[in-house]
Amino acid sequence: MSVTAPAGFEAAGVAAGLKTTGKPDVAVVVNRGPRKVGAAVFTSNRAKANPIIWSQQAAADRVVEAVVLNSGGANCFTGSFGFQTTHQTAEKAAELLGVSAGDILVCSTGLIGVGDEVFRGKVLSGTEQAIAALSTDGGQVAAEAIMTTDSVSKTAVVTRDGWTIGGMAKGAGMLAPGLATMLVVITTDAVLEPLEADAALRAATGRTFDRLDSDGCMSTNDQVTLLANGASGIAPGVEEFTAALAELSQELAVKLQGDAEGASHDITIEVQHAATEAEAVEVGRSVARNNLFKAAIFGNDPNWGRVLAAIGTTSAQFDPYDVDVWMNGVRVCSEGGPDRPREEVDLTPRATHLVIDLKVGEATATILTNDLTHDYVHENSAYAS
Amino acid sequence: MSVTAPAGFEAAGVAAGLKTTGKPDVAVVVNRGPRKVGAAVFTSNRAKANPIIWSQQAAADRVVEAVVLNSGGANCFTGSFGFQTTHQTAEKAAELLGVSAGDILVCSTGLIGVGDEVFRGKVLSGTEQAIAALSTDGGQVAAEAIMTTDSVSKTAVVTRDGWTIGGMAKGAGMLAPGLATMLVVITTDAVLEPLEADAALRAATGRTFDRLDSDGCMSTNDQVTLLANGASGIAPGVEEFTAALAELSQELAVKLQGDAEGASHDITIEVQHAATEAEAVEVGRSVARNNLFKAAIFGNDPNWGRVLAAIGTTSAQFDPYDVDVWMNGVRVCSEGGPDRPREEVDLTPRATHLVIDLKVGEATATILTNDLTHDYVHENSAYAS
Repeated sequence: MSVTAPAGFEAAGVAAGLKTTGKPDVAVVVNRGPRKVGAAVFTSNRAKANPIIWSQQAAADRVVEAVVLNSGGANCFTGSFGFQTTHQTAEKAAELLGVSAGDILVCSTGLIGVGDEVFRGKVLSGTEQAIAALSTDGGQVAAEAIMTTDSVSKTAVVTRDGWTIGGMAKGAGMLAPGLATMLVVITTDAVLEPLEADAALRAATGRTFDRLDSDGCMSTNDQVTLLANGASGIAPGVEEFTAALAELSQELAVKLQGDAEGASHDITIEVQHAATEAEAVEVGRSVARNNLFKAAIFGNDPNWGRVLAAIGTTSAQFDPYDVDVWMNGVRVCSEGGPDRPREEVDLTPRATHLVIDLKVGEATATILTNDLTHDYVHENSAYAS
Repeated sequence: MSVTAPAGFEAAGVAAGLKTTGKPDVAVVVNRGPRKVGAAVFTSNRAKANPIIWSQQAAADRVVEAVVLNSGGANCFTGSFGFQTTHQTAEKAAELLGVSAGDILVCSTGLIGVGDEVFRGKVLSGTEQAIAALSTDGGQVAAEAIMTTDSVSKTAVVTRDGWTIGGMAKGAGMLAPGLATMLVVITTDAVLEPLEADAALRAATGRTFDRLDSDGCMSTNDQVTLLANGASGIAPGVEEFTAALAELSQELAVKLQGDAEGASHDITIEVQHAATEAEAVEVGRSVARNNLFKAAIFGNDPNWGRVLAAIGTTSAQFDPYDVDVWMNGVRVCSEGGPDRPREEVDLTPRATHLVIDLKVGEATATILTNDLTHDYVHENSAYAS
């Protein structure tokens, strides 16, 4: 059901020829009101694509009418021509929807450097076609239209008493947290004030999408947008809404992890007893970005030495000689030395659970990552993406 | 010629059974004087192997008589038993050489977590055998005895007017700068004061070994040791000595890069016109650690978008829309946009030259790295190392 699960949203996905496969590549999600609350978080990469530069301005007043998204080209590092393409896309959508261009967000994904006249023509005609095709059933095809190297479309719906949140996400490579780490559109018919929507989105993404670090590579185009129209007439408390939004965000983050390029393991890194949550995140991320650890997991090798070597590169409080490490339930390292034999660890399942007990404080954090595989190298070397 | 090229040094390498292949695995390098000046730099990984903990103390007075090195086990995270093994190794060498154990440095390399009674027995008997075999011709076999996944031994000699520097290095994976990034022993018969030796070593390694970042993974066991005995009777100026030491260090660093596990490209990343040297290093390293860029080079794909995306994650001063990128002499990106067609770039040679012009200031830095290949994944997943 995706983004059209909540009341008062329409979406569409159409094939505009940006993908050589002829599959859908332009999506539009429109908020039919009554409220037009919008909040968005953007990649913290300082090299930002044109749609990011545009959308940051357009979302600043927290009023968003619609989001136009394309795959098949990132429109990043395409100069002023590329920025004009984004601007024209917003103008085109605004004209057809009868709203202000300043309330249209634009997202692009695909190869950096793609954004010539042919690209522009296809994006503009795709926007027109998609708006003509808008429907309350369009959530699924919209989710398909934003796929790049994704093997499956990713959608999620969370329903509460009388109100709903729906979402779609794309992302398979260049997955590492800036603030957002992929293209995501989330809709809700709950009644939210603009600042509530903003706070809920930042809180939910900070603990979900922002803790997914598949390959350590931060995108130039990432954006997570929340549209809230109040169509349900129900105003949940901010805390309740944030919890539901985090649930949906985590579901999408896990789907992104599960479809990461070439991965053969989904690794959950749970850091326990850190001094602070920030240090727990730092430790988890340092392990998630360690190629030797990631390659070992691909080889079903419970190489805890590489885990400790990665922790040693952080500034987190810990005693290297008082750390415990579990892999899939087996304590392979205790007090910084070998514990159970590595033969006891079964790393054949795709789901891999690593627990690191720092024994310092009470803070905890969980980072999601993937292994480093032949297929990851193949997919990212054989084709430009 | 290796470490025995300068006058007054002896070395040996013997097979003590630590390597299952029966190849040499214990090396000793001894300074026969007259001076016993020693300086060392160590991994900045906070998870330090037992030999690092020992050697940091032993080198503190800048008097070093000998270095004992073993491959076939890192003696890291092996508890107090492992530390005692290191201590006993130093005691054994000191006894046989008739010097103080506090003047013996110890280095180990191999799998983390290896350091049991069998390991200890082999290291101690290997130390005894190696000391019995010491000779002024022993440099080459010593270099072979410290190899792990290295495919070739790495040695270098720099000769000046009447004095010489010799060196040996090992390292093929887990190659990323802490301060030192591998096991290296460098000898010289130049006359140096202890503080001069220390300053020269830090200056030379800071711009050579410390700028080699093959796979972003920092070792727990890295150590670079300089032994200076003054046997030539010649005291070069510190500046002259540092320049010669940097030349030798760079030669060894390039050999390490050339033998990096599974690599098919040696990538030189030259960052120009940065605001500061530190920012140039930060930019170079961010690109060197970007898996998507590294995989693209493996695939002979001049993917400059991934270069700019990596730069965007740094805190260096730059304008994403005024950066130029050259690959093997072709400007593929100018002012943050596409320039020459990618077809013009020939990435088939192993040597790959990337130039990033930040157009901000006058500082420059060069980082050496490798591509991310199927073989890297294979070597680091199929075997525990």
